Amino acid sequence: MIHAYAFKVRLHDVDSAGVMFFARLFSHAHDAYEDYMAKQGMELGTLIEGGTRLPIVHAEADYLHPLRHGEDMTVELTVERLGNTAFTIGYAFRNNDEIRAWAKTVHVFLDPSTQLPAPLPEAIRERLTPLCPDTGETAYC
Amino acid sequence: MIHAYAFKVRLHDVDSAGVMFFARLFSHAHDAYEDYMAKQGMELGTLIEGGTRLPIVHAEADYLHPLRHGEDMTVELTVERLGNTAFTIGYAFRNNDEIRAWAKTVHVFLDPSTQLPAPLPEAIRERLTPLCPDTGETAYC
Amino acid sequence: MIHAYAFKVRLHDVDSAGVMFFARLFSHAHDAYEDYMAKQGMELGTLIEGGTRLPIVHAEADYLHPLRHGEDMTVELTVERLGNTAFTIGYAFRNNDEIRAWAKTVHVFLDPSTQLPAPLPEAIRERLTPLCPDTGETAYC
Amino acid sequence: MIHAYAFKVRLHDVDSAGVMFFARLFSHAHDAYEDYMAKQGMELGTLIEGGTRLPIVHAEADYLHPLRHGEDMTVELTVERLGNTAFTIGYAFRNNDEIRAWAKTVHVFLDPSTQLPAPLPEAIRERLTPLCPDTGETAYC
Repeated sequence: MIHAYAFKVRLHDVDSAGVMFFARLFSHAHDAYEDYMAKQGMELGTLIEGGTRLPIVHAEADYLHPLRHGEDMTVELTVERLGNTAFTIGYAFRNNDEIRAWAKTVHVFLDPSTQLPAPLPEAIRERLTPLCPDTGETAYC
Repeated sequence: MIHAYAFKVRLHDVDSAGVMFFARLFSHAHDAYEDYMAKQGMELGTLIEGGTRLPIVHAEADYLHPLRHGEDMTVELTVERLGNTAFTIGYAFRNNDEIRAWAKTVHVFLDPSTQLPAPLPEAIRERLTPLCPDTGETAYC
Repeated sequence: MIHAYAFKVRLHDVDSAGVMFFARLFSHAHDAYEDYMAKQGMELGTLIEGGTRLPIVHAEADYLHPLRHGEDMTVELTVERLGNTAFTIGYAFRNNDEIRAWAKTVHVFLDPSTQLPAPLPEAIRERLTPLCPDTGETAYC
Repeated sequence: MIHAYAFKVRLHDVDSAGVMFFARLFSHAHDAYEDYMAKQGMELGTLIEGGTRLPIVHAEADYLHPLRHGEDMTVELTVERLGNTAFTIGYAFRNNDEIRAWAKTVHVFLDPSTQLPAPLPEAIRERLTPLCPDTGETAYC
């Protein structure tokens, strides 16, 4: 399964070169992730209030073609890796058939009491499993 | 006529006090304005590329109740004033029936050659007229 | 007394029209306010962690001349009003002798237990008094 | 040579979990890069106005420890690679002796007429060479 999230490139996304400022891509990626989790019934705000932390320990992006002001973008979300304590979300930024950028974020689950990495709670794992490649049926991918 | 624009309060909108950082309200207001103009067939990006500038000369907001992470917001747009060289957009930020904030932005049309205020082009005026209060039929409101 | 805060207009501050996006002015204004409070020994982060909230209930700005990429700006901070439960900070954005923009933010003190407006704690009042116009000696200005 | 750039973590940098939102790290990294180039007499704004584009084609970051509101950070800049058409800037984010995060950005020079990658102009190369590891004397590193 792939989750698709739509947004439009806004004036405050672009810089004086007329293209999206590179750091803004990561904000939109995170919006797509929040949107997916919320649609799975798991609001990030509720998680944070409840003391659950899934901090990002790594992020990266490849910029293939500029994203321009006013363009309609689709972000396609997949789970690239669902491990024991960490998971990786992949993002493809498309404008129609053209991929403009790739991004990924690696999240780790911290035990609320120790703040150390700990096995992902089942409730989170089962929300992410549908985005695993192929079968979407494995608890790890 | 009122134009409604929807957005969700995202993690990067809120600060450590758990509520939307006040400056972010203005970005969302501007997104609502861009959205309206685009739906009227007038992309801001195209205007800017064509040398048309409608810079904001004044902005203000009243914050009545906090906007919280994950909330669904609606921005209602009206034209509060449509003058000869300038216009004022009003924004009401609602969560269901509750108004959380008001904002307004005052834009002035600059003649591309002189960069001085000049009468609003008809093409812009006719896009804004529908949002005037009451009749929506006057060219000035 | 006037408190001066310096910053430089960065690529991510400006939009495709080559000038600072209007909402960014408010972020820089708030940075200047944070900077002043920190220099008075009162970190906003510490206040928030301690449950003290000084939310902004009103903000406004007048944009006189564009702020351009790479320009060195000075923000001059004054306390325009120091009332019983609220205070107003004024900001002048200068590039050398030219004022580019004015801004103000109105903050209200909320009683941590009731979340209702309450008299400003003395510790906050005495940090703000030096920025009152003229004498800087009155506890209200 | 290492170039050091200082900034403070601001309220609008942090999210409701009380730590810097991951995408903001990239904005601060870019500020450090702009600052270095400006001190070498090469303002990015001037480059962009002159038609010179050095778009970022890749960016990544590792987040070791959270950056918290009010903390004083230092960004140490190095050139990790100075190639024929592209270069990589590395950023270490420190708070005193503790490294909190690493980041890197890969920039490519585009020929203004073709918008295709082309050999880096000498004027840019000589600004970056001092940040190469060890000798700082090679034109490629």
